[in-house]
Amino acid sequence: MIGLRTSHKSELVDITEDVSSIVRDSGADKGICIISTRHTTSGIIINENESGLVSDILAMLRRLVPEGGGYAHDRIDNNAHAHLQAVLLNSSVTVPIEKGSLLLGTWQRVFFVELDGPRSRKVHVSVVRG
Amino acid sequence: MIGLRTSHKSELVDITEDVSSIVRDSGADKGICIISTRHTTSGIIINENESGLVSDILAMLRRLVPEGGGYAHDRIDNNAHAHLQAVLLNSSVTVPIEKGSLLLGTWQRVFFVELDGPRSRKVHVSVVRG
Amino acid sequence: MIGLRTSHKSELVDITEDVSSIVRDSGADKGICIISTRHTTSGIIINENESGLVSDILAMLRRLVPEGGGYAHDRIDNNAHAHLQAVLLNSSVTVPIEKGSLLLGTWQRVFFVELDGPRSRKVHVSVVRG
Repeated sequence: MIGLRTSHKSELVDITEDVSSIVRDSGADKGICIISTRHTTSGIIINENESGLVSDILAMLRRLVPEGGGYAHDRIDNNAHAHLQAVLLNSSVTVPIEKGSLLLGTWQRVFFVELDGPRSRKVHVSVVRG
Repeated sequence: MIGLRTSHKSELVDITEDVSSIVRDSGADKGICIISTRHTTSGIIINENESGLVSDILAMLRRLVPEGGGYAHDRIDNNAHAHLQAVLLNSSVTVPIEKGSLLLGTWQRVFFVELDGPRSRKVHVSVVRG
Repeated sequence: MIGLRTSHKSELVDITEDVSSIVRDSGADKGICIISTRHTTSGIIINENESGLVSDILAMLRRLVPEGGGYAHDRIDNNAHAHLQAVLLNSSVTVPIEKGSLLLGTWQRVFFVELDGPRSRKVHVSVVRG
């Protein structure tokens, strides 16, 4: 389990090193690693960690699903946009493990995507040998 | 395998209990569970089961990919929007298993998303120990 | 590993047969197969292989995330739209294996989605028994 505390309303947190260290500690030589959020106003994605792109990703989500768009769920809890943006992302990603390490491409990094922060969040990491 | 019959053109069906019972019956203590649709005009998502949010999710999909948007596939079969909405969702989700149960956050539920109903649908559930 | 060379700026490459043959060669009778791209301007999806639909999928991605939309990442590398479109897709898909074969529905095919081609690309295929 990775615990983290986000600082902003929406933000990307690069958790690649935390995930890599769990994979190393598992001793698994080959298999898969599943990184899952336990929250419904957040997501997990794999992409490049470049500061401009990080802001572009958050801007795209706000543009496709703007806050306060007359959503029914906003009558219950004022964060429908965050749930809807999460639906467009993933609740988990799966990454191969080869030779004891995460098999990621040169530019691939694993991000937790906060969509309704700041909050304390939990990300679960499963390692399956195979 | 979970068989279900949808009732509407588009709808969310909460299948969390069906999935949980397959996981329990498998006897797996630890591992992962993969829930996959076998259809190209549907998806699987994880989010909160609140009736307003459920209608917001369907409305978002219709807004981002409206029916009858001049799609080439509509000349073959009048459901291009349903395929395209499915591409924005997932064909499967993966959920960790811990202590014999699905490890879901407090608000997380697993939904089959019907995008071209009503139809009979099949959802496959794989349990992998790990 | 599946190596492929794309021919267009954006395109869908049906890799179902390549994946099936890796699954057959693995000798796995039951389990899951994870198909992962190693690139941040591409995705993996499952949908129907119909030529009209294939062009509709690419048109939808261009409509939702147009090229040259004033993105910050375009100052670094002129392909922000490709990264952003990739975020809306998946970096991997998971397909069940039953009786030694991929368990896909009648219309389901696995596609590599090129978003910033033409390029040489690598797709990793993991087989996990379960």
